[in-house]
This record gives sequence, C-alpha cells and structure tokens, in this order.
Amino acid sequence: MTGTTQDDYTDRYARRVRGMTTSEIRALFAVASRPEVVSLAGGSPYIAALPLDAVGEMLNQLGSTHGATSLQYGIGQGTIELREQICEVMALSGITGASPDDVVVTVGGQQALDLLARLFLDPGDVVLAEGPTYVGALGVLQAAQAQVRHVAMDEAGLIPEALEEALLELAQAGKRAKFLYTIPTFQNPAGVTLSDERRERVLDICERAGLLVIEDDPYGLLSFEGDAPRPLRARRRDGVFYCSTFSKTFAPGLRVGWVLAPHAVREKLVMMSEANVLCPSAFAQGAVTQYLTTMPWQEQIKVYREIYRERRDALLSALTDLMPAGTTWTRPGGGLFVWATLPEGLDSKAMMPRAIAARVAYVPGTGFYADGTGRGNLRLNFSFSAPERLREGVRRLSGVMEQELAMRAVFGSSTSLSAQRRRGPAAADAPGPDLA
Amino acid sequence: MTGTTQDDYTDRYARRVRGMTTSEIRALFAVASRPEVVSLAGGSPYIAALPLDAVGEMLNQLGSTHGATSLQYGIGQGTIELREQICEVMALSGITGASPDDVVVTVGGQQALDLLARLFLDPGDVVLAEGPTYVGALGVLQAAQAQVRHVAMDEAGLIPEALEEALLELAQAGKRAKFLYTIPTFQNPAGVTLSDERRERVLDICERAGLLVIEDDPYGLLSFEGDAPRPLRARRRDGVFYCSTFSKTFAPGLRVGWVLAPHAVREKLVMMSEANVLCPSAFAQGAVTQYLTTMPWQEQIKVYREIYRERRDALLSALTDLMPAGTTWTRPGGGLFVWATLPEGLDSKAMMPRAIAARVAYVPGTGFYADGTGRGNLRLNFSFSAPERLREGVRRLSGVMEQELAMRAVFGSSTSLSAQRRRGPAAADAPGPDLA
Repeated sequence: MTGTTQDDYTDRYARRVRGMTTSEIRALFAVASRPEVVSLAGGSPYIAALPLDAVGEMLNQLGSTHGATSLQYGIGQGTIELREQICEVMALSGITGASPDDVVVTVGGQQALDLLARLFLDPGDVVLAEGPTYVGALGVLQAAQAQVRHVAMDEAGLIPEALEEALLELAQAGKRAKFLYTIPTFQNPAGVTLSDERRERVLDICERAGLLVIEDDPYGLLSFEGDAPRPLRARRRDGVFYCSTFSKTFAPGLRVGWVLAPHAVREKLVMMSEANVLCPSAFAQGAVTQYLTTMPWQEQIKVYREIYRERRDALLSALTDLMPAGTTWTRPGGGLFVWATLPEGLDSKAMMPRAIAARVAYVPGTGFYADGTGRGNLRLNFSFSAPERLREGVRRLSGVMEQELAMRAVFGSSTSLSAQRRRGPAAADAPGPDLA
Repeated sequence: MTGTTQDDYTDRYARRVRGMTTSEIRALFAVASRPEVVSLAGGSPYIAALPLDAVGEMLNQLGSTHGATSLQYGIGQGTIELREQICEVMALSGITGASPDDVVVTVGGQQALDLLARLFLDPGDVVLAEGPTYVGALGVLQAAQAQVRHVAMDEAGLIPEALEEALLELAQAGKRAKFLYTIPTFQNPAGVTLSDERRERVLDICERAGLLVIEDDPYGLLSFEGDAPRPLRARRRDGVFYCSTFSKTFAPGLRVGWVLAPHAVREKLVMMSEANVLCPSAFAQGAVTQYLTTMPWQEQIKVYREIYRERRDALLSALTDLMPAGTTWTRPGGGLFVWATLPEGLDSKAMMPRAIAARVAYVPGTGFYADGTGRGNLRLNFSFSAPERLREGVRRLSGVMEQELAMRAVFGSSTSLSAQRRRGPAAADAPGPDLA
C-alpha cells in the first residue's frame, strides 16, 4: 500500500498475503513506461513484426464465421484442435509422441506454473529453482507459501554439483523438496542455457532423488545459433512437467500457454484450472489455432529470431563499447535477456532512481531472487527496442554507473542500503510484464 | 481418476487436492453434449443472437490497427479504458461513484472469486453461502480448503433469520466466518432474487457481525420484468466486494470479468492476479472496450432479455403442462435458470443415467451444495435452447420421472444411494460450462 489509505482488512487476510508487499521500485517502473525513458526492463516480444493486417482478417473470420463457438464457453482442458497443434509445436523441439489428452491449455505460461504450484505445494514446502529465476515463478511460489532454495548457475546453466549440494543440505535438515523449477533454455533472467551433457546429469540427479521437474520453456524456439538442446521432457517422460506458451512465438496479448503433464495428473490439473478460471478463452484458443493453421508461423519465428539476434548483437556491442571496467554480462544464444554483473560496490536497486532520472530503466537483480540477493546484478531486455535505442539505453546506464563509481571513489561504499541486503521475497522489485 | 492409470503422484499432492475427485456424473455430461440430447444442463448464453458480422469486423480492426497493443502484454489490473467503462456499466445497476482505480479486471467472474478466496481464506476458514449456490464458487472454496456453511433461501432469496442463526451457531462453536458469498439477483441455481427489504436486513446483519460480503452479480442486467433491486454494493461501500462479468451481457468466450474492491484491498488483488495469470488478455479487454464503444450494447442486452424471457416462459409452461404431480419449481424474474424440486422419493443424481438414456440432461442438485444434499433438486437452463426444444426436454424428463415414480410405487424407495446422501464436496456433480 502507498500508505495513503488505511487498510481495514489487515486482520482478515489469509496468511499467504502477509508477505506480499510492494516496494518503492514498483512505483518507479510506472515512470519507466514514459516514452522518453529507454526501457530495458520489460520482457515484451516485438509484436510489430507480425503481419497485423492478415492477423486482423483472421480474427474477423473467427468472430463472424465461428462466433457461435469462439465467443462461447469451452471446456476446462482446452480445445482438442489446439491441443493437437500444441503437440506438433512441441515435436519441433524434440518432444515427440505426446498425447493431446495430456495437454492442458492455460492462461499463458503463468497460469501453468500457478496450477502446478497449487497441485503440489502446501505452505512451507521447499522448491528448488535456479538463482536467479523468473520473477513470475517467485510470485507463484510466494502465493503458495513455499520456501525457495536457489541453485547456482554458470555459463552452462544450472550447476549439477550445486543441485546435489542443495539436496544434501535439505536431507540433512530433514526436509524434502517437492520439485525443481527450471528454465533450461535461454534462461530468464540469466540468458544462459543448460548444456546437453548437464541436462542428462540434472535429470539423473532428480530421478535418483525422486524430485519432480517443472520445465519452463517459453524461449526454446527463439534460438539464434542452430537449434537449442532438446528439452528435458524430450529426454524423460516421467516426473517432468513441461510448460510453454504462445506469448513469445505469436502474441502474449492472447494469454495462451500450456502444460504437458503426466497422464495421471492431467485431470486434477483440469479441475484446478476450472476452479481458477472456469475455462481458457475459446476465442484466444481459436485465434492460435487459426494462426497455426492458416499462417506461416514457422517463418514468423524465423523473423523473430533474426530481429532478436540483431538486437542481442547490438546490445552486446554497446555493452562492450560503453560499460565501465569491471562490468560483466552473459552472451545469450537465444531468448530475450542479458544478465549483467556490476563492478564491485555498485547496487542495482539503489541505483534505480538515478537511472530513471537519466531516462533508462532495467530490472534490479533483487527481483529474481527469493532472498533479497541480486543487488550486484541487473537484467536487460533486448527484444523490444531497436538497436540504436538499445545502444542509447546502454550509454545512459553507463553514465549512471560511472557517476556511482566516482561517488564511491570519493565517499567509499556508495550505499547505505547494504544493511538491508537480506530481506523477504523481492518479487515487487520487478515490473509488470508490460514495461518493455 | 478413472482408475485406468495408476497415479504415482498421490503422495506428492498438496492437501487441497485430496478432496478433489471426479464423479461418475461428470463422465455422463460428456455424453450430454451430443446433438441428440436436449441439454438443460449448461449455463451458456445464446451467442447466436449477437451481430456476429459486426463483431468480426470490430475484431479485425482491433488486430490490424491496434495489434501492437492488443496483442501485447498489459498491466495486471487491466486497462484504464475498460475499467472506466466497467464503472459506467455498474452505474446502470445503481452502483454510482465507483473509481476505475478500485476495479480489477479478471479472467471471467470465476477468477474474481478465486482471487478473493486466495486473499482471505486459510485452510479451515468458514464461508457462508446460499444453499444451493454457484458450482464454480464451491470449486473455488474447495481449492481454498474452506468450510462452507450453507444458508437457506426461499422465494425472496436468502433468509435473514437463517443467516443470523448460522452466525450464532458459528459463534457458539467459537468460529467466525470470513465472508458471505451471495448471488442476490437471479440466483444461480435457484433463480430467486433477494428482495429489497431483505437486502437491507442482510447488510445490517453482516455489518453488525463484521462479516465481509462477496456479491456475485453476473445476471443483474438480465431482468425480465422491470429493473432488478439495486445491488448490495450500491447500498454499502464498505465491506462489500462486487464481482461481475461480460460473459452474460456480451460473450463468455473472451473471459472478461471484474471485481470492484475496497481501495485498501485493490493492490493486493492485483498482485494476486499477477501471480496467477500475469495480466488479463489485452486483446479480450480491447474487444470488450470496442464493443462497448462502437456497438449498441444496451440494445443487445434488451435482445437477450427478450429471448430469455420467451424461453423462460416456454420452460415454465412446459413444466406446468408436463411435470408429474408433486414437482415444484421457482419462477425466475431474470437470469438463466429454474430450480426444480422433485416429488418425494425421487433422486436427481441416481436418475441422471436414465435421463441421459432418454436424451435429456440437467444438473443434479448435489452439484450446488458442499455437503452432498440436493438429491431432491435439479437445475434447468433456459437461455441456450429454443422454446420448442425446451418443451421437448421437459417432455423427456417428465417421462423419466414418471417411470421412476412407477418403479417406486412397485419397489418402494427407488434408490440404493440414499446411504451415500452425505458425502464430501460434490462440485464434480456439475458439468463444465460448455454443455448447454
């Protein structure tokens, strides 16, 4: 709350609400959407690259010719037509032989994660997740009152030894994790990809430990250099829940995602979704079905890949040319994000107000950890802005960092916030999805 | 589960999942969607009455001209344009002076209920609800692990004395209800409306007891005889959460609903929604906004009213003409449903397989109670089928009932299921929303 309104409901909220607070950062993001600000903060695809006239005509047909079904209620699991097409899309990534019967259509990838959390998590349950990880997953896990134990990554993704160590630590504490949440390919926010060899090791470790895996794969088809390694679900059927979305390959405004779940679980997921949203939008599903049926969607993915590769290159060049010494960053082979590590002593969260004043926005690393770490990092998006704008954003950011470093050289450690370094869930340190 | 697949995940599910079972009834509803079956079971509006060509052209514009925003991510609370329009829609019902800032757009009315449940309910919390009540609300409350205490209704809706009695009973047991969930106008499934005088009494009782009210009002604009009584929210601002949807006034296939919440609560609802679905569909919101801006939507509601009034009349006449003696039913002044009470000894749930065999479907009353009661009742929908088809459905249903009564006359009590009369949540006794 902003503090301007007294909250008379405080003593009535469920326990899960008590940890939910907004932060001063969230208010800053509202400013970040102003046109004069170069926002590297969001995660929006570049929708203007779609053939919008043709899409419009397709939507016309869907409403005028098929309105009696497309504007009506549908079934909780999603239409059979779309579920069959989803199986074809997954086959492109190497997941073959999946049954449409085991696919549950969801309101974007976000609802997929939320349904799985509701299915498996009681308050206090432990979940393993990469550190850093998707801010929306942290929101889900916080609402589920789960404990997040982060597992470290390096350039080749999740570190198997760190996963083993986490499991050992939990076992020694008499705890057991319910599942591993992972984005193995073009990870958000880190921009790294779990190597082929590590995929097998991670799966072996999970299998031995009886640990379920939730594989989140929104970016797998957005590879810039050859195909991405095959998904985890393509390697193991049992115990792997595969989630993805049409938000990055077609359009996020329709909110259509899915889960591919082991058969035994599917019906419970459907009932959980019915209790949540009754049914996914028949119109949105029809739009995706028509898009996949009548339009060159695989060609469109190539268009996205080329645009994003060019922008990634522009961002990486700008970082190389303009960033102060001591700054490092990942070199993503696909997806939407670069993860940067600031020179020693800089604090991405404390720096945000000054960055906004300098008309550039990013997401502080704290948004991607459940434990308040990440002040030394920030996430930069390259999918939404044109190359020259990305460079301008980096130029502005670099200027802010140089100033911070200069202040630090004069006054010592720049931030009085270091005492607050560890605090509760920091999901509110990230913007909504719209602020690209 | 059907029993055909072993469920290896049983010991991993969250506690909320344990009570979730499908019933034999649910499988029957799949059959009910066959064209030869007259289904009085669903709750679908008659979408074919929309000017679909014009709607299609409108959707074309939304995609082709506004695609860069309508197909993109949006903010969690929903667009300001739609929230302003929602305030105008609510003003039609008598809710004046609401601020768009206090409206949260949801994925249909269902997500609105679910968000409120997540905001307020911990496992074991007590909720008061009319008996019978909306099956989707029971699904939400079951997922929230809440205890439902039903409050009786009569022809004038919720009985204030029964509400007071329930509160007293809870107080004596040392419990306190978190909220009253109510559908005061054209109630689903009962088809009754809370009278003006009782609205004030119910609100007074809730105020005295410090009981929050969740007012669900999907049908308020679908009145057949003059305007419905003003909503509870039009009479009290504090402590009343107002939920509604465009599913019955425009199109359920878009999944656009909303909550009007006290200001102090609104931001937490938004964060809860972001954790659930990230943001509501920008396209679906844009479609509703365009519909409300460019098309004669109030005229369209009059069209719906007239069609549904004619169908209600047809259903009531058929019931009068064809039902066996001892059957009674409500006479709804609006909405979509009639609630029937069977002659003594008939069991709506046990009768379902024979009804389906006779090519007619309804929803057994058990679907609308959390405690397994309702076997003496059934819900009949009149919005979706043409008058002559409604009459044919009643004729078939009547035939099945006559047979049951004849059997009962010969063999005594017709059902061996009476021993199962009380069991757990019965939400699975109702169909998905698509089987009208």
